[in-house]
Amino acid sequence: MRSAQITIKDIAKELGISVSTVSRALKDHPDISTDTKNKVQELAKRLNYKPNAIALSLRKSKTNIIGIVIPQIVHHFFSSVISGIEEVAFDKGYNVIICQTNESFEREVSSVQTLISSRVDGIIISMTKETNDFEHFRNIERSNIPMIFFDRTCPDIETDKVIVDDYKAAFEAVEYLIKSGCKRLCHFAGPENLTISKKRLLGFKDALKKHNLPVNDEYIIKCDTFKKGKKAVRKLIEAKNLPDAIFAVNDMTALGALIEIKKHNIKIPQEISIMGFTNGLISKISDPPLSTVEQNGYEMGYKTAQILLERIDGNIHDETKTVFIPTKLILRKTTL
Amino acid sequence: MRSAQITIKDIAKELGISVSTVSRALKDHPDISTDTKNKVQELAKRLNYKPNAIALSLRKSKTNIIGIVIPQIVHHFFSSVISGIEEVAFDKGYNVIICQTNESFEREVSSVQTLISSRVDGIIISMTKETNDFEHFRNIERSNIPMIFFDRTCPDIETDKVIVDDYKAAFEAVEYLIKSGCKRLCHFAGPENLTISKKRLLGFKDALKKHNLPVNDEYIIKCDTFKKGKKAVRKLIEAKNLPDAIFAVNDMTALGALIEIKKHNIKIPQEISIMGFTNGLISKISDPPLSTVEQNGYEMGYKTAQILLERIDGNIHDETKTVFIPTKLILRKTTL
Repeated sequence: MRSAQITIKDIAKELGISVSTVSRALKDHPDISTDTKNKVQELAKRLNYKPNAIALSLRKSKTNIIGIVIPQIVHHFFSSVISGIEEVAFDKGYNVIICQTNESFEREVSSVQTLISSRVDGIIISMTKETNDFEHFRNIERSNIPMIFFDRTCPDIETDKVIVDDYKAAFEAVEYLIKSGCKRLCHFAGPENLTISKKRLLGFKDALKKHNLPVNDEYIIKCDTFKKGKKAVRKLIEAKNLPDAIFAVNDMTALGALIEIKKHNIKIPQEISIMGFTNGLISKISDPPLSTVEQNGYEMGYKTAQILLERIDGNIHDETKTVFIPTKLILRKTTL
Repeated sequence: MRSAQITIKDIAKELGISVSTVSRALKDHPDISTDTKNKVQELAKRLNYKPNAIALSLRKSKTNIIGIVIPQIVHHFFSSVISGIEEVAFDKGYNVIICQTNESFEREVSSVQTLISSRVDGIIISMTKETNDFEHFRNIERSNIPMIFFDRTCPDIETDKVIVDDYKAAFEAVEYLIKSGCKRLCHFAGPENLTISKKRLLGFKDALKKHNLPVNDEYIIKCDTFKKGKKAVRKLIEAKNLPDAIFAVNDMTALGALIEIKKHNIKIPQEISIMGFTNGLISKISDPPLSTVEQNGYEMGYKTAQILLERIDGNIHDETKTVFIPTKLILRKTTL
């Protein structure tokens, strides 16, 4: 596809001007005269010139490597996303290299640097819980490497994003709990700097409000790992303040809660309902099996890679887009 | 450490001969006179010159990247190994990039090529189930990139290896089952081309022999995934031929068996014992929790990275070594 594409060089040659003049004309640079700008832009339009080809022509050669920067590969969701990415990438002749940040901002920064210096053709990112500074992502932009975010996206970087509708998914899950008769609902919430956490929390609150249930701050607990889920339940039991439903920000946290609740011989779901988020393997094999939200990690990875490869190949050149992957409520045995 | 090391250049300068002459003299090249060889080798010895420095001086620059080629990151064992590797690597200022082969030989070959062309400083490998041709590993040797295997090692490549004593671990696990009263023992075995599968199978057989129990070919079933574990149990139940113990080559297979057995209301461990191998998170949270062999993935990764970094830094220059990581039998509720 690329070889047939019009490049900035073709335009320069056709008009008998320099490549850098064409480049600046296309960017509406103030140094270039209106007359030249018009000529360049008209020809670009007539030849069906696609702006992405700039980045491509500036880069010396392709490595056919896609880089992924991901928080934790042990999580079923993330490894499903990677499988989806690899399916598309390998099919198109790309290799995939993965950098695990282990939720460390510092590792994320050095992973991005590693991928840039390895001259990957494109970068796929899901941010750490700690990331509040985005300069390393701007380095990717400056290196003209196409980049795309999935799940944990960066609000300050204008690029393609593939996500689920976390607000809607959380709202539906919580509304199901309410309709099944739960009245004292608790949310085990993710870290505040992640958009996904904020949206799931908002979905939780809005579902309570819609059904005239009080939003109790005591029942919004920051807690997003297996261990923390166990500990939070232990505290609630000690305080004799166990809710009748827990909506956890992810399956692992729900599972920690489940294990601790079972240990105290409290009946699931008769005395307390538990709802996770992810639908990882673990939710199918827990006892009782966990009700959860299917997040479709594989589809998310598949779509993410498709968009990235289209950007790399210069086949899409429109504004950045945000794609939503559908979710689905999965009802098993931890809810009524 | 490296800056203080004697290089091939120092020897060349000292003797007033070319670097390539020194290099060839050290390799006992036939073009070099015995006299020159003796001079070079004596000086090399006197200056405590370490051969690994050759590779380092020949390479233009360090990338400070370690590459890992691994079958499946979703497995708790492999992700634990990666965590151990990363702990050491990050501490020493290295970045880590991971290539997942998904048990495909083809992907393994292209992953190795990707890492070589990314000019990584060292490569850590655990082979796919399919790998029977080792030419891609020889490419690593030819590129002078230090390489080390863990768990699924390559018998034909002379390099460092970090493993567990699979034979002994399997023998002990099976002997425990026998001593607990099991008489009809079945092994869910891994693929034959992997050394670890062969050794675990041999440990199984030898434990039976030691205790005068028959080795029944019907009870050695090739089956090494969650799905295959379920299917194998279904078949055994249909044939009314369920054993009184299953020793599975890994936890996921054991778990597939466990889930299927529970579905048929057969009591674990009263009617059938189940023993896994790995001690992944999943074995702790299954119901009943799984007896298994702790494989110490984290320690394995830690040790692997330590050895590799020592090779990269030229701090070890002796023969290749094989390091054994200790295992431990973990008894939970699926055994008597």
